[in-house]
Amino acid sequence: MAVVGILMGSDSDLSVMKKAAAILDRFGVEYEMRIISAHREPELFVDYAKNASDRGIKVLIAGAGMAAHLPGMCAAIFKGPVIGVPMHTKSLGGKDSLYSIVQMPTGIPVATVAIDGAANAALLAVRILAVSDGELSRRIEEYHKEMEEQVIEKDKKLLSGGYDD
Amino acid sequence: MAVVGILMGSDSDLSVMKKAAAILDRFGVEYEMRIISAHREPELFVDYAKNASDRGIKVLIAGAGMAAHLPGMCAAIFKGPVIGVPMHTKSLGGKDSLYSIVQMPTGIPVATVAIDGAANAALLAVRILAVSDGELSRRIEEYHKEMEEQVIEKDKKLLSGGYDD
Amino acid sequence: MAVVGILMGSDSDLSVMKKAAAILDRFGVEYEMRIISAHREPELFVDYAKNASDRGIKVLIAGAGMAAHLPGMCAAIFKGPVIGVPMHTKSLGGKDSLYSIVQMPTGIPVATVAIDGAANAALLAVRILAVSDGELSRRIEEYHKEMEEQVIEKDKKLLSGGYDD
Amino acid sequence: MAVVGILMGSDSDLSVMKKAAAILDRFGVEYEMRIISAHREPELFVDYAKNASDRGIKVLIAGAGMAAHLPGMCAAIFKGPVIGVPMHTKSLGGKDSLYSIVQMPTGIPVATVAIDGAANAALLAVRILAVSDGELSRRIEEYHKEMEEQVIEKDKKLLSGGYDD
Amino acid sequence: MAVVGILMGSDSDLSVMKKAAAILDRFGVEYEMRIISAHREPELFVDYAKNASDRGIKVLIAGAGMAAHLPGMCAAIFKGPVIGVPMHTKSLGGKDSLYSIVQMPTGIPVATVAIDGAANAALLAVRILAVSDGELSRRIEEYHKEMEEQVIEKDKKLLSGGYDD
Amino acid sequence: MAVVGILMGSDSDLSVMKKAAAILDRFGVEYEMRIISAHREPELFVDYAKNASDRGIKVLIAGAGMAAHLPGMCAAIFKGPVIGVPMHTKSLGGKDSLYSIVQMPTGIPVATVAIDGAANAALLAVRILAVSDGELSRRIEEYHKEMEEQVIEKDKKLLSGGYDD
Amino acid sequence: MAVVGILMGSDSDLSVMKKAAAILDRFGVEYEMRIISAHREPELFVDYAKNASDRGIKVLIAGAGMAAHLPGMCAAIFKGPVIGVPMHTKSLGGKDSLYSIVQMPTGIPVATVAIDGAANAALLAVRILAVSDGELSRRIEEYHKEMEEQVIEKDKKLLSGGYDD
Amino acid sequence: MAVVGILMGSDSDLSVMKKAAAILDRFGVEYEMRIISAHREPELFVDYAKNASDRGIKVLIAGAGMAAHLPGMCAAIFKGPVIGVPMHTKSLGGKDSLYSIVQMPTGIPVATVAIDGAANAALLAVRILAVSDGELSRRIEEYHKEMEEQVIEKDKKLLSGGYDD
Repeated sequence: MAVVGILMGSDSDLSVMKKAAAILDRFGVEYEMRIISAHREPELFVDYAKNASDRGIKVLIAGAGMAAHLPGMCAAIFKGPVIGVPMHTKSLGGKDSLYSIVQMPTGIPVATVAIDGAANAALLAVRILAVSDGELSRRIEEYHKEMEEQVIEKDKKLLSGGYDD
Repeated sequence: MAVVGILMGSDSDLSVMKKAAAILDRFGVEYEMRIISAHREPELFVDYAKNASDRGIKVLIAGAGMAAHLPGMCAAIFKGPVIGVPMHTKSLGGKDSLYSIVQMPTGIPVATVAIDGAANAALLAVRILAVSDGELSRRIEEYHKEMEEQVIEKDKKLLSGGYDD
Repeated sequence: MAVVGILMGSDSDLSVMKKAAAILDRFGVEYEMRIISAHREPELFVDYAKNASDRGIKVLIAGAGMAAHLPGMCAAIFKGPVIGVPMHTKSLGGKDSLYSIVQMPTGIPVATVAIDGAANAALLAVRILAVSDGELSRRIEEYHKEMEEQVIEKDKKLLSGGYDD
Repeated sequence: MAVVGILMGSDSDLSVMKKAAAILDRFGVEYEMRIISAHREPELFVDYAKNASDRGIKVLIAGAGMAAHLPGMCAAIFKGPVIGVPMHTKSLGGKDSLYSIVQMPTGIPVATVAIDGAANAALLAVRILAVSDGELSRRIEEYHKEMEEQVIEKDKKLLSGGYDD
Repeated sequence: MAVVGILMGSDSDLSVMKKAAAILDRFGVEYEMRIISAHREPELFVDYAKNASDRGIKVLIAGAGMAAHLPGMCAAIFKGPVIGVPMHTKSLGGKDSLYSIVQMPTGIPVATVAIDGAANAALLAVRILAVSDGELSRRIEEYHKEMEEQVIEKDKKLLSGGYDD
Repeated sequence: MAVVGILMGSDSDLSVMKKAAAILDRFGVEYEMRIISAHREPELFVDYAKNASDRGIKVLIAGAGMAAHLPGMCAAIFKGPVIGVPMHTKSLGGKDSLYSIVQMPTGIPVATVAIDGAANAALLAVRILAVSDGELSRRIEEYHKEMEEQVIEKDKKLLSGGYDD
Repeated sequence: MAVVGILMGSDSDLSVMKKAAAILDRFGVEYEMRIISAHREPELFVDYAKNASDRGIKVLIAGAGMAAHLPGMCAAIFKGPVIGVPMHTKSLGGKDSLYSIVQMPTGIPVATVAIDGAANAALLAVRILAVSDGELSRRIEEYHKEMEEQVIEKDKKLLSGGYDD
Repeated sequence: MAVVGILMGSDSDLSVMKKAAAILDRFGVEYEMRIISAHREPELFVDYAKNASDRGIKVLIAGAGMAAHLPGMCAAIFKGPVIGVPMHTKSLGGKDSLYSIVQMPTGIPVATVAIDGAANAALLAVRILAVSDGELSRRIEEYHKEMEEQVIEKDKKLLSGGYDD
């Protein structure tokens, strides 16, 4: 049963949001990935957000670009942690998405990550679930060890003259 | 019966949004002014937006600051013209409000005016209603004539040395 | 007889502004599409804006980039609703166009849509005309239903594993 | 025993960060509030971040302004959820703080809230803890009900002519 | 007879634009200062801009804020040099005015100076007139000498410990 | 003998600055185009700027990118009109160049045009020279007439269905 | 004999630049503080920058606002390390000063610090001089110890309930 | 033995940071180039920064993108001069990196150069080392002479019609 919902308002966000799914796969966290629009199907959206908790969803990750209302509207209805992923945009580079997601009014928090930062959104969801799941905590430690080793590896390669780009 | 709804999510927007009311008063357009929050009372908000048209509302004016979802969510549910007024904000000057309101995705238009531009929002509502109301059109012409006269007056005062600030 | 005028100052804006025409075609709204420059032919422009109303134009849509004076100058002369479309620009991404269009002084409102948002400009024009045209209102409802169905379709496709980008 | 750590690098952030404490008080969540600087006492900081988990801290809230490294450095060492609060700044309005906190590289997520959004940071911490704490979930529902009632109250006051500012 | 026209669309720009007048007074250049709005009295404005040259105006200085169309519209009609002064604005700091004035399309140049830079606008007008006026050139040299002396004076005062702010 | 100097600090600006030369060619204004760097050869630069006037230069056009000191330093030494052309930049889009050129302190004006606006810089130089050159004024009128005709031509083509992009 | 020169183009920068002097006083580094303008006295400026090294100056600190050419022009002529301090500005918050100082072309480096960051400019000068001065290195260690102690003190005060703002 | 450390948090910064190495090679300054991450291996990073001085490192150059904590954390631990190179980023163009590096709090200075300005970072390191190394000073003079000659060469080529791009 999915404990994380990965939402996006349009399939144009899919190539970015799939990175969240890949992280959750790696950590063995079950999720559902959905295309749901607060603007184009407001009633279906409200239903989804209202029922998510009862369906077992613990954390919502919502990606959105431009005016980017999806994460904020999720957080208005779903009462668990909502993570917002601002999408890169052609004209404003994603600053529009970022402001629309992060500048929420008092009362309705959205945990915002970097522009196109879907992987970090999933890592944040894992950290949140790990608060009450020791096995997940262990995997996070492991993940950090791997990151560390990858940097050490690259540093060695550079020191040994292995880069030529 | 109100034909224009002036909405704001918080009473902190009232001092700006009252300028919209003042313009509608001047043009003799009936309106209602409401504090309704898409974030803090999403279900009441959806109800308001769904029923507005049946209650005779022709145009919605929505003021909002920061993440500023109110105008966009109005336009997702209410199918008439929605005018968004981005509120000035302390940290980003209202650029956050502006982007959150104007950068709507295709399908859900919001007619955006200047930051804190509530008076122009109301003038836009009047122009919209005047499309099918000759009397309002006449008053718009009058209003422009007055604006013109005021500028001429000030120009004269300046030419005659009447300014000293 | 055209009820909407789609204006642009240069043919370089045409590929964007054609999206407005496509929407009006879909809704059966008659329009004229014109290249008219407030900067390069100010007198012709003034004539066009002054006579538009008498020629039956109810709403003007004006696309403009950079200093982007066209929509604002339309709204100074034509007294009906004017919708401004800020064009994307290479150096400032369209922020220049957006500010030049949306930050109008009190008295002269321009209904501004997203950068390159010509489709929404047309949808806004349709919503404005629909205030006094029940048939158009019906088509708007239909349009929203179609949008909703398209999102549902994509969501199903995603759930069934149909995306692989 | 504190389950939330509220950190700031300087006492100049205290007037904002106290809003986080006030929220946690309201929800009955135990916390510690500390002035700890990643820049001015890097070794003490590393010690704090490394031992926080063993001391029972489940969530860190870190407020920081300008280059604002505190939240990101917390997230590099402490493996639980880290919430970053960008401080308003005189010259860049907090855009510097926001970018320095939200634009984290893949692997090290920081849950970023609005500029000066310490209250929402605490609400986010509460939502995170509530994932495995039914009583907290109940209090969140209550909190939303109160917010809703407050908006309704203000709306009534406005409708009855009770505002005059 | 005035050879420079100092224009502004609103008397709210007067306190800034008077600095241009003060500079022209110092250089003995005759000017007229006018409140003329391209938005609120477009026909009067067109008349002014068309006839300025015949009335002996050689250079126009136009101050404008926000959407700031005045300088660009001057340059579209008046064929002499047009200098634009972007006004500081509350919400966007004058970035809106600056972009609206400086980002003119090819064919219609506006000589833009700093935000609120009315004094420099006048100095630029003087430099332009001095191209064919040796006496003005001499006064410019003098003016630079005075500026130099003022800096030297302040430097001496600082070196001698005369500052205590 | 050259009356306009077109300067740039680096040959990377040449492809843009050549547009200034093309305009001056069209108007029959003599010019010299030079690569001169205020940063890399400050003494040569000072010599050039000091002697320009004696060599017959009436107007300087200086293109510069990033920190873009060239136009401002020209205006500090050369006492005639200086026109600055901010170059587009990869990272900041030319906003860095624009601010560095336009935000000059009182006393040292630079006539700034649009980012990459070398053609308008030259047109501005022509307008400046035309203040005391009736033949140039006539050619400017001609130029505007051509611009007008080109727009009319494009408008006709569009009306007759001649565009298909 | 002064080894650091603290420069500013105008006495309006003095209240900020004095913080650099205070730091150098604390570290026992001799300096001179001068008002010298690259724009208003270019020849005096060039002389100063050319002779600084021979007069014993090892490091230049230059504060400047808006177009802010002073640090970059210093670095073009003086061949030692130049530290630039961008001044806060009313309209652009100092972003103009920052870009004009930091975005130097290849070949002419300016070590840029935060907006209004004169104290850090001096600390950077101290770090630079300490590269070949063991006693200064020792004082830097001391300075960091003091900073650390101050933070610890404030943390204790907060833990013991000593703050009430 | 290396006297300069060139650090980067990720090998994706290598193509830019190699320009720093090229400059140091040209000046005969010994350096080490390392991939070290303050985020992904915070303890290794702290060790590196603490021991750098004892290992003979006089100056650190740190390149970083987005939240870009590396230079600031270096300056918190290593007490010599730290030079920060903000990396260009896709969405915010490097403004995020720039703010995160330059806006350091008082006490912890980072000498910031232009976005992607690794060559200037190295030139700044050379200027710093040259404060106590006459031979390096001589080479800097030489380098400036070469730059000057290159500009003169290009100017000649342009004057003689040698450019055709």
